[in-house]
Amino acid sequence: MNKPDPHVAEPNPPVTDPLPYADLDLERAARRGYPEAVFCAGKTPAQVAGIAATVRSRPDVITLFTRAAPEHAAAVLGELPDALHDAGAGLLAWPPVPPPATGGLVVIAAAGTSDLPVAREAELTARFLGRRTELIADVGVAGLHRILGHLDLLRRARVVVVAAGMDGALPSVVAGLIAAPVVALPTSVGYGAAFGGLAPLLSMLNACAPGVAVVNIDNGYGAGHLAAQIAAGAPA
Amino acid sequence: MNKPDPHVAEPNPPVTDPLPYADLDLERAARRGYPEAVFCAGKTPAQVAGIAATVRSRPDVITLFTRAAPEHAAAVLGELPDALHDAGAGLLAWPPVPPPATGGLVVIAAAGTSDLPVAREAELTARFLGRRTELIADVGVAGLHRILGHLDLLRRARVVVVAAGMDGALPSVVAGLIAAPVVALPTSVGYGAAFGGLAPLLSMLNACAPGVAVVNIDNGYGAGHLAAQIAAGAPA
Amino acid sequence: MNKPDPHVAEPNPPVTDPLPYADLDLERAARRGYPEAVFCAGKTPAQVAGIAATVRSRPDVITLFTRAAPEHAAAVLGELPDALHDAGAGLLAWPPVPPPATGGLVVIAAAGTSDLPVAREAELTARFLGRRTELIADVGVAGLHRILGHLDLLRRARVVVVAAGMDGALPSVVAGLIAAPVVALPTSVGYGAAFGGLAPLLSMLNACAPGVAVVNIDNGYGAGHLAAQIAAGAPA
Amino acid sequence: MNKPDPHVAEPNPPVTDPLPYADLDLERAARRGYPEAVFCAGKTPAQVAGIAATVRSRPDVITLFTRAAPEHAAAVLGELPDALHDAGAGLLAWPPVPPPATGGLVVIAAAGTSDLPVAREAELTARFLGRRTELIADVGVAGLHRILGHLDLLRRARVVVVAAGMDGALPSVVAGLIAAPVVALPTSVGYGAAFGGLAPLLSMLNACAPGVAVVNIDNGYGAGHLAAQIAAGAPA
Amino acid sequence: MNKPDPHVAEPNPPVTDPLPYADLDLERAARRGYPEAVFCAGKTPAQVAGIAATVRSRPDVITLFTRAAPEHAAAVLGELPDALHDAGAGLLAWPPVPPPATGGLVVIAAAGTSDLPVAREAELTARFLGRRTELIADVGVAGLHRILGHLDLLRRARVVVVAAGMDGALPSVVAGLIAAPVVALPTSVGYGAAFGGLAPLLSMLNACAPGVAVVNIDNGYGAGHLAAQIAAGAPA
Amino acid sequence: MNKPDPHVAEPNPPVTDPLPYADLDLERAARRGYPEAVFCAGKTPAQVAGIAATVRSRPDVITLFTRAAPEHAAAVLGELPDALHDAGAGLLAWPPVPPPATGGLVVIAAAGTSDLPVAREAELTARFLGRRTELIADVGVAGLHRILGHLDLLRRARVVVVAAGMDGALPSVVAGLIAAPVVALPTSVGYGAAFGGLAPLLSMLNACAPGVAVVNIDNGYGAGHLAAQIAAGAPA
Amino acid sequence: MNKPDPHVAEPNPPVTDPLPYADLDLERAARRGYPEAVFCAGKTPAQVAGIAATVRSRPDVITLFTRAAPEHAAAVLGELPDALHDAGAGLLAWPPVPPPATGGLVVIAAAGTSDLPVAREAELTARFLGRRTELIADVGVAGLHRILGHLDLLRRARVVVVAAGMDGALPSVVAGLIAAPVVALPTSVGYGAAFGGLAPLLSMLNACAPGVAVVNIDNGYGAGHLAAQIAAGAPA
Amino acid sequence: MNKPDPHVAEPNPPVTDPLPYADLDLERAARRGYPEAVFCAGKTPAQVAGIAATVRSRPDVITLFTRAAPEHAAAVLGELPDALHDAGAGLLAWPPVPPPATGGLVVIAAAGTSDLPVAREAELTARFLGRRTELIADVGVAGLHRILGHLDLLRRARVVVVAAGMDGALPSVVAGLIAAPVVALPTSVGYGAAFGGLAPLLSMLNACAPGVAVVNIDNGYGAGHLAAQIAAGAPA
Repeated sequence: MNKPDPHVAEPNPPVTDPLPYADLDLERAARRGYPEAVFCAGKTPAQVAGIAATVRSRPDVITLFTRAAPEHAAAVLGELPDALHDAGAGLLAWPPVPPPATGGLVVIAAAGTSDLPVAREAELTARFLGRRTELIADVGVAGLHRILGHLDLLRRARVVVVAAGMDGALPSVVAGLIAAPVVALPTSVGYGAAFGGLAPLLSMLNACAPGVAVVNIDNGYGAGHLAAQIAAGAPA
Repeated sequence: MNKPDPHVAEPNPPVTDPLPYADLDLERAARRGYPEAVFCAGKTPAQVAGIAATVRSRPDVITLFTRAAPEHAAAVLGELPDALHDAGAGLLAWPPVPPPATGGLVVIAAAGTSDLPVAREAELTARFLGRRTELIADVGVAGLHRILGHLDLLRRARVVVVAAGMDGALPSVVAGLIAAPVVALPTSVGYGAAFGGLAPLLSMLNACAPGVAVVNIDNGYGAGHLAAQIAAGAPA
Repeated sequence: MNKPDPHVAEPNPPVTDPLPYADLDLERAARRGYPEAVFCAGKTPAQVAGIAATVRSRPDVITLFTRAAPEHAAAVLGELPDALHDAGAGLLAWPPVPPPATGGLVVIAAAGTSDLPVAREAELTARFLGRRTELIADVGVAGLHRILGHLDLLRRARVVVVAAGMDGALPSVVAGLIAAPVVALPTSVGYGAAFGGLAPLLSMLNACAPGVAVVNIDNGYGAGHLAAQIAAGAPA
Repeated sequence: MNKPDPHVAEPNPPVTDPLPYADLDLERAARRGYPEAVFCAGKTPAQVAGIAATVRSRPDVITLFTRAAPEHAAAVLGELPDALHDAGAGLLAWPPVPPPATGGLVVIAAAGTSDLPVAREAELTARFLGRRTELIADVGVAGLHRILGHLDLLRRARVVVVAAGMDGALPSVVAGLIAAPVVALPTSVGYGAAFGGLAPLLSMLNACAPGVAVVNIDNGYGAGHLAAQIAAGAPA
Repeated sequence: MNKPDPHVAEPNPPVTDPLPYADLDLERAARRGYPEAVFCAGKTPAQVAGIAATVRSRPDVITLFTRAAPEHAAAVLGELPDALHDAGAGLLAWPPVPPPATGGLVVIAAAGTSDLPVAREAELTARFLGRRTELIADVGVAGLHRILGHLDLLRRARVVVVAAGMDGALPSVVAGLIAAPVVALPTSVGYGAAFGGLAPLLSMLNACAPGVAVVNIDNGYGAGHLAAQIAAGAPA
Repeated sequence: MNKPDPHVAEPNPPVTDPLPYADLDLERAARRGYPEAVFCAGKTPAQVAGIAATVRSRPDVITLFTRAAPEHAAAVLGELPDALHDAGAGLLAWPPVPPPATGGLVVIAAAGTSDLPVAREAELTARFLGRRTELIADVGVAGLHRILGHLDLLRRARVVVVAAGMDGALPSVVAGLIAAPVVALPTSVGYGAAFGGLAPLLSMLNACAPGVAVVNIDNGYGAGHLAAQIAAGAPA
Repeated sequence: MNKPDPHVAEPNPPVTDPLPYADLDLERAARRGYPEAVFCAGKTPAQVAGIAATVRSRPDVITLFTRAAPEHAAAVLGELPDALHDAGAGLLAWPPVPPPATGGLVVIAAAGTSDLPVAREAELTARFLGRRTELIADVGVAGLHRILGHLDLLRRARVVVVAAGMDGALPSVVAGLIAAPVVALPTSVGYGAAFGGLAPLLSMLNACAPGVAVVNIDNGYGAGHLAAQIAAGAPA
Repeated sequence: MNKPDPHVAEPNPPVTDPLPYADLDLERAARRGYPEAVFCAGKTPAQVAGIAATVRSRPDVITLFTRAAPEHAAAVLGELPDALHDAGAGLLAWPPVPPPATGGLVVIAAAGTSDLPVAREAELTARFLGRRTELIADVGVAGLHRILGHLDLLRRARVVVVAAGMDGALPSVVAGLIAAPVVALPTSVGYGAAFGGLAPLLSMLNACAPGVAVVNIDNGYGAGHLAAQIAAGAPA
């Protein structure tokens, strides 16, 4: 690259305080009750590192880094070496220990093994926002005995997150079995007419059982956050 | 309307032999083993009446009239007064008595009451193509005990047609419970993000249980025809 | 219509016990904690009347009739003359008095006046499932002072249902202001590239603030049901 | 990666018994009559290897591994070195010998050479589920004499699987020529307005000849499974 | 309606010369070789009448009125009582006699009876633009013998227009049989996943046989115009 | 309708002050410089009448009523008998006289006669927001001489609104000829693959000439408002 | 890969005569008047090499290889070293010399420089099918003087192929200027709401000037083939 | 590659004058008031280098190169070493100094950090077309205080460009707060149901506040160009 005119082009500005490219909302935990998360996709590793360096001064606020590719994770870990990192889920958390659990139980059910990374993102999010969690895997409707075998656990939950790709049929089935709300988490697992998760997304939006709250495709963070809010101990 | 130049415009030609607007395939029963059906949508009542008049000379071949609006039905019944007419299913059959049943049992399951007209179209088609049929209604996955209560019947079937709108989850569940193939029949029941049946169609194409054969939205005739072929007694 | 062969076609069967076209789940209130609703769209008035006649023997269970066109409403009121009927929302409830309210407060916010019928469907559903409700109207983001003027009420809610068409921007804004979860209810209000509610649906699924639970387009019943579950007093 | 807190993050758990990430349904062959298949896409090679290690103790049940990328195939072959592997079809089978053939003949027709990998996946699936198979290639409708030259073979089949991309016209043509049902297998062969297989998928769903059972785009496994069920010898 | 301020609102201006709402291109026949057509959809009957009154002074130029609903047709016939009117095709032509035919033969093939109105629109357009035409009906691929029975006629054509809905498979088959180009005319005949003609449109765009020229759904006028240009006698 | 419980259902509340269903933003003219418009679609005539009654006390603020069906227009005219009403454009304005014109010239070009109602909505909006306007009609690109004949007028404009359906090609052509920005207004004129205005919308979004500002399909009000803002201040 | 059971898996069969994976239609030139082309995408290089080896014995028939990636081109050139290869267009031709030109002139117009590879594919195809060709580049509508500067050439053509991406506006403009038919060739040039060529495809299907024949996105081969047929000297 | 027949294939022609592959419109600055930009995507680096070499003789006209991948940038810098290059925005400008600023202020607001590259493309374009610019970042609606904190700056602007992905809600909010027009710039930031920027695009087209001008997804160049045109002349 040639030397830019300093008055015109500064595409990769150095880390400064305040950051010129991000307006961190560190008071959000106080205002909304939940801390902000840093969405890494689309940010440069340098930008993510800058943000990580900034939050280091605030160990009182848990920061989650979501959709972190390996280069993003390396940038975070360079600044916050003890951060928790779940590579499959693309998630980092710092400080690395979740707060003491309060509120109701959050159960996460993954229809297939391939849905696990997104389900884990949901579980870790809910846990770092202060909830107890349980995860059950490979309980899709093609073998109905699998989900029915977990009915007791499902009925103990204050909210159940159900991650499923392909036909997205599991949330309807679970919602029909329990009194608690279901957070339906469509995944991009599948091919062809799954259209990148469109098929399970539409299924879930049209669930024939009421009580199904849908989030974006592969949005494990959003599902976990929503579940944590629903399972919070007392009216907010 | 003004008087058209006879050499140029004849939009509604009179009934003649052969018909100028249709090439009836009355030998199809001999060639393919199944008679032709007359798709009424898009035809004028006069055209349908002309076809009905033509088939009257062939009581040896059962003719089905599908997607018949009331004006089409009236046109058929004007020529074939004893034709069977199921108004909800938009279907007429003549001669009005199905042939003696052969082959395996065809079970039709309708997820909701609103799916019944399409399910009936499938059932009547299979019956007039020579199969025994059973229809069960309102067995959607929101109350799983309903479909599980019919497991014995489902397992006796050579093929099961499953009609469902909204989330289209029922075929996956049924296919996971039985050895026979499932004909998945998406319906336009629903609203909003059901997008006229797109949602259940995609669900069914992405069924997580194998053994699911999908047909067009609201295509009860096609589902019944396919089921009749699958349940035929001997290799064709 | 001609006289059908009684062994073949019975498209409009008489009301019987049990109903041949519906498998009412009157025990659902006991099993799931919430009663079943009757989705009227796609059912004939005669079928709806048959269902209404059946539930009359169970005044201990509240039954909601949703998506009721005038002919459906007349059918219900013929059997249950004292049923509550909100014509704009297409909803009937019987018995017509909601149960005593328990749990947290449900606030419903409608972005525009045109979103009111769907917002009312959500409010009435939540009320008949046992929650206190408050409805605020015409608080879209084009005049931000309108929603900000209700901040105290929004922060007292255990859950906020936000109905919006067009750009569907209001749920993101509300979710960013409060700790409670938001149920985002896209409506078909709009035209052109709103594509029947697709635009607000996608906006809501992509809300940049977490804590947004999306339901189907115009699904006021589902939004109200979900809100009632979230605001229930104790873990279910 | 940093060392995770053992109580929080275990994204790649070791292989254990039972597997924490999969609930194998090895009794499915007994229950449904057909064994389970392992969908490799979205699973890590380690997970696939764990599953392969588990099924090694059950040579009485044939296991198929579908959508296996080279790294998945290597993982399977590391545990089951004698597994059959068709790299083009992305399929592995173990034990590597199909069962003795029963039931009717399954014919697979591929419209073009580019459709062959998916057609092979269908053929191998049907063969490993116990059917005789024949495969014919490059018989698209642009040269009608090609498919017409195989009419005798097509009419001997109990079911014909037709794989086609682009215009997806071949299933309609074949269905119009034979009495047996057609399993229409759309492929992603094509470009531009083929939209990844959407064009042939829609064609097949709208086949003007009845008797066409559609499966998902590129779903050779599903097509072969369905064909095997249809061609099974006796009512299941 | 109230009395508008004459300086502000004139929604339905009276017929004047020149017309304030249309800029007729009566010299187009000289410039392009083909006359202009008046697209009636979206115009008020008064506007169509105004245009008809204007063209009356130019009997040397043939004017076609397309997509004419009954009220449009009445407006035209009020001004041009001897205009030819094909109500099914929604077409009027004035003067009502086509010019002497030149150039090659245009054959129009309609896959089904329901495709006839659009096929007639194509035929009449080509005829009024100066070509000889032949129309064959109900020759869809479900009964391949029907189209094959017309092979001699098809091979005499300079261009063949093929109208088809549903799977849109006929143009591929025809193009594979002849040397002349095929104008593929998708129709909105069908339902469900035909999506208003999208399915045959995509099929035709992906025709596996080259030599297929696609026009808009139900655009019989455009197909006939294009065919007339292709079959013109000499390089233009 | 039965008598509703007054504590539960008030679907059609009487007109009160303040209105329970609308939060009029009559100060918006002061705050934003432009008055609010009332979007009538989806509102009941009674609600529209209530709003009209309320604005009657504020003749200092011009109120536009957009997307007014005949019943909405009657409701407005019942309260504001001297309101200007353009039925084709679905627009009413009160007081009925536009303010004195300031700023630059707004030219509106309609590609076809069928685009005129939407183009008129844009023109009237811009005029009532205080701009001079000129409207030219039937200048689509199929006869390029028509738009080129207006080049002088186009180049005098501070902004040009271009309304077009079908291929939506006119905005690209106009933008390539002038220095001023173009507001591209796609219309739903067309059929088939126009998909209700999607085709021209996409064309305009992909205009190969820069300087094209796109608004929603058929959004004449939005186009006129945007043009008024762009042309505010001083002639360019 | 492990050693397959020879009776089960032969995914990459050796080159044999006849080829097991392709049914070459070398008589097509005699039957249809135009030779077959080999679509390379989706074929393995070994398969393409096998086909190239086969056609070597038939230098009397020109064979085109389309959509040839570098590995396909290498495979062809290994068997047919003197084949003509245009890498940008992904096209090979053998024998490498086009036949003597007959028929009318084919003009190809590319809207932008980025459309040139596809335009070249069209030009070479038309030339190898026996037509004279002229190519003009960078004549998009953003600078209308560019296309108008070529009006003489355009009017000498028997058919004009117009390749354009983005707004796809050029075919409408060209069709409005000439008497000859236009083959509209949408390209995937663009981004965002061009949706891979969908935007220009829809524009072209909705061209407001008649006489526009649309082919698939990026289908230079199809456009060139169609143009060659249209410009053929005499009825075929 | 083999040696092509010089009369047939010249896919990569050498740089000549005039260029055979591009028709540069260097007089456009005089005609339209703004210089032409070179869209690099889809051009070969050699073509881009050829264009860069040509413009070197015209330092009186500023040339922008947009959507420049690293290889395009290297090609430009090889010919114009002192060109300004903003790698993140994919933009080069030569001569590298913007003209003196005239007209009104252009403010660019980026909803998130990930939207910055596109926002920078808009800012640099507006600056090189002669406007003063200010850029504010990370002001999305999830934390409303962030955008409200910049209200003074926003109200000083003649036009505001708002770049946002995901829900695309920010333009509606900004447009509701100011009198100036808003250029809404949807970005592809997001995942799942953002569908590559479709979600914010639809939101912006349906903005509930008028005064929103939408451009293509990720079209920073177009947004900046449009803003420069709107802000031309005098401060509003």
